[in-house]
Amino acid sequence: MPVNKQWLLVSRPTGQVSPDNFRLVESPVPQVGAGEVLVRNHYMSLDPYMRGRMDDSKSYAAPQPLDAVMQGGTVGEVVASNNPGFVIGDKVVARFGWQLYGKSDGANLQKVDTTRVPLQAYLGAVGMPGVTAWVGLNMIIAPKAGETVVVSAASGAVGAIVGQLAKQKGCRVVGVAGGPEKCAAVVSEFGFDACIDYKAGNLAGDLKAATPGGIDGYFDNVGGEVLDAVLARMNAFGRIAVCGLISGYNGEPMPIHNIRSVLINRLKIQGFIVSEHMDLWPQALTELGAQVGSGRLKYRETIAEGIESAPQAFIGLLKGRNFGKQLVKLI
Amino acid sequence: MPVNKQWLLVSRPTGQVSPDNFRLVESPVPQVGAGEVLVRNHYMSLDPYMRGRMDDSKSYAAPQPLDAVMQGGTVGEVVASNNPGFVIGDKVVARFGWQLYGKSDGANLQKVDTTRVPLQAYLGAVGMPGVTAWVGLNMIIAPKAGETVVVSAASGAVGAIVGQLAKQKGCRVVGVAGGPEKCAAVVSEFGFDACIDYKAGNLAGDLKAATPGGIDGYFDNVGGEVLDAVLARMNAFGRIAVCGLISGYNGEPMPIHNIRSVLINRLKIQGFIVSEHMDLWPQALTELGAQVGSGRLKYRETIAEGIESAPQAFIGLLKGRNFGKQLVKLI
Repeated sequence: MPVNKQWLLVSRPTGQVSPDNFRLVESPVPQVGAGEVLVRNHYMSLDPYMRGRMDDSKSYAAPQPLDAVMQGGTVGEVVASNNPGFVIGDKVVARFGWQLYGKSDGANLQKVDTTRVPLQAYLGAVGMPGVTAWVGLNMIIAPKAGETVVVSAASGAVGAIVGQLAKQKGCRVVGVAGGPEKCAAVVSEFGFDACIDYKAGNLAGDLKAATPGGIDGYFDNVGGEVLDAVLARMNAFGRIAVCGLISGYNGEPMPIHNIRSVLINRLKIQGFIVSEHMDLWPQALTELGAQVGSGRLKYRETIAEGIESAPQAFIGLLKGRNFGKQLVKLI
Repeated sequence: MPVNKQWLLVSRPTGQVSPDNFRLVESPVPQVGAGEVLVRNHYMSLDPYMRGRMDDSKSYAAPQPLDAVMQGGTVGEVVASNNPGFVIGDKVVARFGWQLYGKSDGANLQKVDTTRVPLQAYLGAVGMPGVTAWVGLNMIIAPKAGETVVVSAASGAVGAIVGQLAKQKGCRVVGVAGGPEKCAAVVSEFGFDACIDYKAGNLAGDLKAATPGGIDGYFDNVGGEVLDAVLARMNAFGRIAVCGLISGYNGEPMPIHNIRSVLINRLKIQGFIVSEHMDLWPQALTELGAQVGSGRLKYRETIAEGIESAPQAFIGLLKGRNFGKQLVKLI
């Protein structure tokens, strides 16, 4: 008799996330009622935004409730269906969270085609992270050929896509990542023109050397000192898309000293949340799916094995230990 | 025989502006050649942006050259003309800078109508400061009725106009100014709903009390701790127009601690320079001129007497000693 396994959030972190914040519980696999679909999840997604929802503070989304299953994106396969829209074997994207099974009335359950795109890519390059890259780049930065675009967390699920899309538009693309191995791969695998190791201790100097013509667009996933260093290199009429501020997710202070660049260079800085731009998702997913299917768009995955590994994998993600999309394999 | 008097910039400030940075010189009144116009300036404008140009650092405008006449806006009267477009007695707006006379071939010399608008208002509410208010409010903040708009330097030449225009759009308008007298006048004369004295030592608390529904738009003339306090009160999808950062003009550090509000609230922060939006000037000037002519739009002036007073008046402006538009009367 199969059982469901679920990770609950049982306490909120004070500062860094601890494994103690979560508890693994077992429960019966849900029964499907009239019109319902049961899905066995194959992969669950781990994303930096989840850190923000673990806090009980005002933000763009409601906090993750305590003693409830951790929320998040999943991909899986229909294993039982009383819904005419789904048959056993259908591959679906959902938001069942950190658990092995999920039940739905069919709403918020999307069938996907895995003939050319691997199922788990719908949690990455052809999912929320890919659309995040697409929206921030096209809606806010809107780069022109010849401009210089900088991307932080360049080896991550979002950053790697941002850089490749900007290269396709004819930009000079410079990544910022942590460590020489990630930086080397950002250039060799994803085709960035350069990548700066923010851990090397010479951020401002390295950034200056890599952006001899200044910076026109910045896709910010981290905030903090990288944002500050970029502000000092921005060109007139530069655009900064603020997608994530992972350097401050644990409440660390992250003072910004170069705010006067906003005036001197008439910058536009704009924060965005991809779920608030649903009108752009269909176009973005069509383009991203075609590029992943053809192999033009590259991505990497870091896959943790088994639902038991989820908390440690999530903590590793927040510390930058992943390379590319962080997934947990559930099957 | 009349002489021209001119203030030259003879050294760049290190930190605060000093009277020693300027030197007053006399020279012959220019002779008008073919096609030229001679103007006796009646008022010269003093504006915060002039501080930035005194430095030799990269900014949106070229630095004020050393040993040259201080640049700036002027209004005056044509006293000699060999140009068919101008006759003696014409009132004109120009950028002759800190001097008694100016000569032009007619370019950059604009005749103005002083039947309903006082000549010097073309340096204030119906000039660059008024258009600055109009552009930042309409182009970047674009407030809707019922929203809350905050304006710093609310008693200044720009801030007072911003607030009145926002009130006309049905907004709740809260000013920030220095001292109880300015704050009282911002409410009683300019019709703001409230005004916070940033010198009273309770900026965050006072701002919270005055903006019970949060802040949707912020017109920033000062940067620094006011910007930081406002960031913490911004509502989702708020807009911040960065017009001036006077708190940092002398190179003071002005760290911003609440930058995460940009992401949490999906803010747009945009710097702008009014001279880069010349397409908007005609509409803005038409509206502002009509409102000043009818008495609907209120403004205040602080007038220093005589060209000799210019450096001290400018230093006072940077310290917030003026109320409203700072002018120097030259006649």
